[in-house]
Amino acid sequence: MRLLLATRNGGKLAELRRLLEAAVPGVEVVGLGDVEDYPEAPESGATFAENALLKAREAARYTGLPAVADDSGLTVDSLNGMPGVLSARWSGRHGDDDANTALLLGQIADVPDERRGAAFVCAAALVTPDGSEHVLEREWRGRVIREKRGTNGFGYDPVFVPEGLEVTSAELAPEEKDARSHRGQAFVALVPVIADVLGARQS
Amino acid sequence: MRLLLATRNGGKLAELRRLLEAAVPGVEVVGLGDVEDYPEAPESGATFAENALLKAREAARYTGLPAVADDSGLTVDSLNGMPGVLSARWSGRHGDDDANTALLLGQIADVPDERRGAAFVCAAALVTPDGSEHVLEREWRGRVIREKRGTNGFGYDPVFVPEGLEVTSAELAPEEKDARSHRGQAFVALVPVIADVLGARQS
Repeated sequence: MRLLLATRNGGKLAELRRLLEAAVPGVEVVGLGDVEDYPEAPESGATFAENALLKAREAARYTGLPAVADDSGLTVDSLNGMPGVLSARWSGRHGDDDANTALLLGQIADVPDERRGAAFVCAAALVTPDGSEHVLEREWRGRVIREKRGTNGFGYDPVFVPEGLEVTSAELAPEEKDARSHRGQAFVALVPVIADVLGARQS
Repeated sequence: MRLLLATRNGGKLAELRRLLEAAVPGVEVVGLGDVEDYPEAPESGATFAENALLKAREAARYTGLPAVADDSGLTVDSLNGMPGVLSARWSGRHGDDDANTALLLGQIADVPDERRGAAFVCAAALVTPDGSEHVLEREWRGRVIREKRGTNGFGYDPVFVPEGLEVTSAELAPEEKDARSHRGQAFVALVPVIADVLGARQS
């Protein structure tokens, strides 16, 4: 049984493989790197869940495989939950982590410490070619500090200090981050759903 | 009876003077330009009403006069109501209208027409030296277009098309804008409150 993870990110692929192999014997997880001429769709949804479903639907339609996709971002309390689904293009420049982070820090420069709460949020979706759809969301609470610290991770990791920690998520080792993070938690929660759905299709 | 309007903006001052003279005989409206060494306080509130009250409170405390202040900004539906109280410093550069507007247009570039609703919001507050406080809010609904049009007004006016109009608020004549705008409506609504409060103090 093959399962598509709608990403070109090798790290996400390896992580979902590890999680799934333990839970679903015989599953083979492939990434978009293994799919020829895959069309990139814009992330046009208004919510993380909507974007994750759009990506998984498109991947399942294009490949005929059950497909998993995720969408994630940082929701900042004092910005009413933004940058949210616009996290990767907050500065108007898609994927420019430095510009996005500098803008965020500038916007909330006058926001006092007690109002700097935030959460990384991840929605993970599973869509099968026969149209069954599942989506769930997990969040990782913390706060936004005033200067970047740490070089691991990506995006807003250098300015995010998770609850219960004194280091940023960019100062965590990758395995530590995976074990605690919004994405790690969302994938962990989706694995039994995937096992159920794939198990039902196999039997 | 003197009343302080906590602004250095001559246009706002003239407008409130016109409105008040008709409603409150004998009132004299002065601006911050008439107050020596007035200390500029940061706008640190989380809402328009909070900021308007902070400004009016500070002005009443400093001058011993009844004080009126306003705070306003653009709330964009697809940004969960942001830039909101951060409208004037959305790009991280305070008062840079071009940078703020360019950033907003970039952030919502992929947002389809049917989700580009927005509102200009104005909170207007009256605070008297003896501690009576009044605040109210008015909004001006419309939508954000994709390119700037018009040269009147300031801030996000060139990209805001009010409901019921086909032109931007930067394409309206100043008197037309005052008659319809969030700020005009908030001041109009505050005038009877001011008349009541000043009348009670006079009698």
